Amino acid sequence: MSRFWSKTTKCITPYVPGEQPRDKKYIKLNTNENPYPPSTRVYDAIRDANNSSIRLYPDPDATELKSALSAYYKVGADEVFVGNGSDEVLAFCFPAFFNREDAICFLDITYSFYPVYAEFFGVDYKTVSLRSDFTVPLDDFPECTRGIFLANPNAPTGIALDVTEIEALVERLPNTLIIVDEAYVDFGARSMVEITKKHDNLLVVQTFSKSRQMAGLRVGYAIGNTGLIEGLKRIKNSFNSYTLDRIAQKAAVAALEDDQYFIRTCEKIIKTREDAAKKLMELGFKVLPSKANFLFISHDKFSGKEIFSGLKREGILVRHFPRPRIDNWLRITIGTDEEMNILIEKLKDLML
Amino acid sequence: MSRFWSKTTKCITPYVPGEQPRDKKYIKLNTNENPYPPSTRVYDAIRDANNSSIRLYPDPDATELKSALSAYYKVGADEVFVGNGSDEVLAFCFPAFFNREDAICFLDITYSFYPVYAEFFGVDYKTVSLRSDFTVPLDDFPECTRGIFLANPNAPTGIALDVTEIEALVERLPNTLIIVDEAYVDFGARSMVEITKKHDNLLVVQTFSKSRQMAGLRVGYAIGNTGLIEGLKRIKNSFNSYTLDRIAQKAAVAALEDDQYFIRTCEKIIKTREDAAKKLMELGFKVLPSKANFLFISHDKFSGKEIFSGLKREGILVRHFPRPRIDNWLRITIGTDEEMNILIEKLKDLML
Repeated sequence: MSRFWSKTTKCITPYVPGEQPRDKKYIKLNTNENPYPPSTRVYDAIRDANNSSIRLYPDPDATELKSALSAYYKVGADEVFVGNGSDEVLAFCFPAFFNREDAICFLDITYSFYPVYAEFFGVDYKTVSLRSDFTVPLDDFPECTRGIFLANPNAPTGIALDVTEIEALVERLPNTLIIVDEAYVDFGARSMVEITKKHDNLLVVQTFSKSRQMAGLRVGYAIGNTGLIEGLKRIKNSFNSYTLDRIAQKAAVAALEDDQYFIRTCEKIIKTREDAAKKLMELGFKVLPSKANFLFISHDKFSGKEIFSGLKREGILVRHFPRPRIDNWLRITIGTDEEMNILIEKLKDLML
Repeated sequence: MSRFWSKTTKCITPYVPGEQPRDKKYIKLNTNENPYPPSTRVYDAIRDANNSSIRLYPDPDATELKSALSAYYKVGADEVFVGNGSDEVLAFCFPAFFNREDAICFLDITYSFYPVYAEFFGVDYKTVSLRSDFTVPLDDFPECTRGIFLANPNAPTGIALDVTEIEALVERLPNTLIIVDEAYVDFGARSMVEITKKHDNLLVVQTFSKSRQMAGLRVGYAIGNTGLIEGLKRIKNSFNSYTLDRIAQKAAVAALEDDQYFIRTCEKIIKTREDAAKKLMELGFKVLPSKANFLFISHDKFSGKEIFSGLKREGILVRHFPRPRIDNWLRITIGTDEEMNILIEKLKDLML
């Protein structure tokens, strides 16, 4: 505490990322990282960028990366914004599109950074409750809201909505900016990217951290109409001109180029997820139908906290959220088949 | 423009970084980059970090880097904050320490990002005018100000203040947070880092972009008492948990380890600066006494704009600020001796 803290600093409750313990080697199934290494093209790109140009500022507009994303997603380069992870992109959405007197909306159970941003930027928010089966009641989003953050698939549940359902929301609320956070979309859900061309109130946010194995390099992006993208650029350039470093920009371009590897690793994770879901159900777990690289599970006979602690003792980290409605649930990242088999065996031991 | 732009987005005037043209190869003396490559230890660290751990999130607390900085500067690890370039660190200072109703102060001619931040975060500001010789009238900073941003050496003038002068300001205004932006301090000025131990109203901000040849990797830091650092951490964790990627963290640690190379390249730049200043004065330029890796110059017979355009045509980029009081001046980054000799020759040609 310092006498120079602002009211904001005193009042905010910062986001708490999943733990990264250093006391011993864990099987890390707690932060939704990809179990596979990045594409070898990423290694090559980093090796090639490891030269004296490090002394020079990066391209503040990330021209090459934006053009690669624009070609990949078949949108204009001015319909793409890139930032330091999708977290930074989501953060920039607040000052870009919402005023202090505005109210925005998101689900009661969703990515827990949304309320932190809202508090930080002083934007009021309301939540819409998931149904008791954790599905999303899109019709409950009210009309008089300036913006909606919608994670699809939702986190930590993994449940996905159809493109047509979200488009119906976008059409029902034409004066609301719908920001669809697709951090996990590549693991079996369908993206809204194509639909951004039809609606000026739809912005899609994605990341290289999950499906492209690059959580360590911090690259995220948004796709939407040029006016929305221009707004994000104005905010970025009033905060930090260069948030994406040279090596991260080059590595991201390389990751996009290796589409085969991307497709193959996504398919592997989906297959591992389905196998693990089946085995967990055989152990008596409730397992929500997931389209993400994690499963959300609970058990009638053992509390979430109990299983979390038991697994941690056994060297396996998963994520437990001590929050209303979900404190008996665990979010388990999909690792390799081998890691998931160890998880299942340890769970069997714990439940004996 | 989008109908979803917030008032902030509509009203702000974003910062404009120095141009990074791609039409041809220039001698780049416009963005104060270091003319020398990074230490070979930086290359080694990047090579070693180019592995499958890229799939994992970086350490959100940058423990290793903070501990290296703490050892280097002989301060506690909890007296160090790291961010994505000193620009991000400076940006975080606003919500961390200033409320919307507060007024802060900086010089009328200084780093032009300060007013952009202030406008973005809605903090009121007043400016104190440099004297006609561009020296800093520290006594003119008023008492009733919540914070002062002071670049030392100042940019774009290069003029430095003594540690004792700044400490006198810190003591005269005990209820004002003095943020000393030392981006250029390693080129001949003295740092306030040691003094931070004595005063809870002093925060020092530095960067790896200039003296450590790493503009491309975006690493900046702040040193101050634990309360101030804790405030910055709370803000960062409400905005983006991981703003420094894995490779940048490792590279920065390696750069700190090679102190000999750091000292040698700083000395070279200082020597080149003094030689260039002498030659420019021989050509009739006014040259401010600089302790930075740039010179601020003007000529009675040729306008700043004219020389800027002439040099650009000849393949040399320098920085011209079309702003009151300094629109006849040019800021010229110190390159290699060879680059500075070409600059001098081209200037001679232009002035024939």
